[in-house]
Amino acid sequence: MVFEGTIHHMLLLHLSDVDEANWALKFREALGDYPVVRRGDDFDPADIRYIFVWKPKPDAFDGLTNLKAVLSLGAGVDALLRHPKLPRDVPMVRFIDEDLSQKMTDYVVAQVTMHHRLFTRYQADQKARRWVQLYPPAASESVVGIMGMGVLGQHAAERLKALGFTLRSWSRSPRSVEGVEGFAGEAQFDAFLGGTDILVNLLPLTPETQGILNYETFSKLRRKLDGGPVVVNGARGGHQKEADIARALRDGTLGAASLDVFEVEPLPAESPLWDIPNCYITPHIAAISNERTGVSYFSRILKDHEAGKQLVNVVDFSRGY
Amino acid sequence: MVFEGTIHHMLLLHLSDVDEANWALKFREALGDYPVVRRGDDFDPADIRYIFVWKPKPDAFDGLTNLKAVLSLGAGVDALLRHPKLPRDVPMVRFIDEDLSQKMTDYVVAQVTMHHRLFTRYQADQKARRWVQLYPPAASESVVGIMGMGVLGQHAAERLKALGFTLRSWSRSPRSVEGVEGFAGEAQFDAFLGGTDILVNLLPLTPETQGILNYETFSKLRRKLDGGPVVVNGARGGHQKEADIARALRDGTLGAASLDVFEVEPLPAESPLWDIPNCYITPHIAAISNERTGVSYFSRILKDHEAGKQLVNVVDFSRGY
Repeated sequence: MVFEGTIHHMLLLHLSDVDEANWALKFREALGDYPVVRRGDDFDPADIRYIFVWKPKPDAFDGLTNLKAVLSLGAGVDALLRHPKLPRDVPMVRFIDEDLSQKMTDYVVAQVTMHHRLFTRYQADQKARRWVQLYPPAASESVVGIMGMGVLGQHAAERLKALGFTLRSWSRSPRSVEGVEGFAGEAQFDAFLGGTDILVNLLPLTPETQGILNYETFSKLRRKLDGGPVVVNGARGGHQKEADIARALRDGTLGAASLDVFEVEPLPAESPLWDIPNCYITPHIAAISNERTGVSYFSRILKDHEAGKQLVNVVDFSRGY
Repeated sequence: MVFEGTIHHMLLLHLSDVDEANWALKFREALGDYPVVRRGDDFDPADIRYIFVWKPKPDAFDGLTNLKAVLSLGAGVDALLRHPKLPRDVPMVRFIDEDLSQKMTDYVVAQVTMHHRLFTRYQADQKARRWVQLYPPAASESVVGIMGMGVLGQHAAERLKALGFTLRSWSRSPRSVEGVEGFAGEAQFDAFLGGTDILVNLLPLTPETQGILNYETFSKLRRKLDGGPVVVNGARGGHQKEADIARALRDGTLGAASLDVFEVEPLPAESPLWDIPNCYITPHIAAISNERTGVSYFSRILKDHEAGKQLVNVVDFSRGY
């Protein structure tokens, strides 16, 4: 692809906390003659047609008067939507990434199977050198309830189904996925919780889902699994009320929690969660997009758009994802 | 099915450490007129055509002169084959149980995914309140090597394949399973180990496989996974040398071990394994046959055999399984 005389068409990378130089290298290989610049480079902001962002600084969008699209490295765009200077008249494309879905499912499956197999109980027994032959239920006897049935939720549901788990889902609007009992909206939330042993959160973070993992929610879960119901949060820290999680883990309302995300990250050293033995903490590593798939995905979108095609996976600002 | 005048055809239950009375109840429901007796009952040993056993006592087979088959509740028959008075001229049928396969796979998948997601590392970080964003590999980047490709090995391989893991197997004789790189025999053992990150043992216990999980074996595993290679033993304690496991876990030759079985069970209180933080102990609960599926399976086999059909899943005494 050659863009003769198109020096006014540029891709700007604006990536914090990741290896921006390496992304630039890969994008240049993939895009050939199409100019790729970074923040420190010498360029006219008016030439920027696309900006590829991860944790953009406050001035990230300043002067980008000819922007055609914002490309988001993250699949979750909640933080990006709160950027005070995000241009609202420019479409935003989010990353729908098979590699990211696979890794999130790896995380979810590892946590769900660990809890289904009563890991917390056996760890306590091991510490006490106690040999008690308590038999975990078969996968089919445990109900995994997935909140959020977007790309990530459906991917995880498929794999958990293959393992034999009984599945149900809860989402904003009704979803029909084979082998998954669907619940939708506020009206069906309690019914959804009432039959769920292991609650997996993969919702987008929106004003409606903020703080949804709270004590009241936990107290409505089914109490069938030995030790109590379990929550797994692979989505956003804003979904959870950590004081409620600590309370629920301590008083037995929850049997265990696996948390990859937190209200404040890194999780502050004084958080009580660190020391709760049935709270399983990972440092927001459940899933990250990799350069290979990211460059391939966004290069294709950029080329197609320059060739006159529609953008795909565009964020609906009113829904927030 | 009515056996008129067949009071000389009886099924004897001889089950230790499980609820024999309940099994008897269920067998009587399933077999109708066919007499089912227990050890303490009043019967002539010469009338026993079938004996259903779990951990049989030394005199279990005494006087059973008209025995047609030994029915083994366990899928693994290594202990039963060592019974000094086991009749060698009577076929033995072992339990091939979908429910048992499912539960063993539940165990294997939970352990494999836990280790693949670097659980030991994150637990250590949590204890130290350390936030280090180390990203686990995708499932496809980790190689799970399954030793033993019988019913259990194949069942686990299928589910792990659905999760995206790269799989290889090692067995006595070559096995061709789609999507699983097969290795066989002593000659290919080192090559098998050299590309394995997570080693799963589901072999039958035979003189050839006794002690196969030893220090030399561990030292040949691939060292790609953060923390080191992992072993998961869901088969028999006789497969493992526990002194070697302790040494390998302590010196880093192994990154972690998940053990459901032990050389001596219950695991003695003085075993060093209890206190090793990267040794994950469960008290031989990975999989147990349940009464419903067991009664259904053996009732069918007994009825079919009485009706003149061949026995299925008969143990080959020369192979030992």
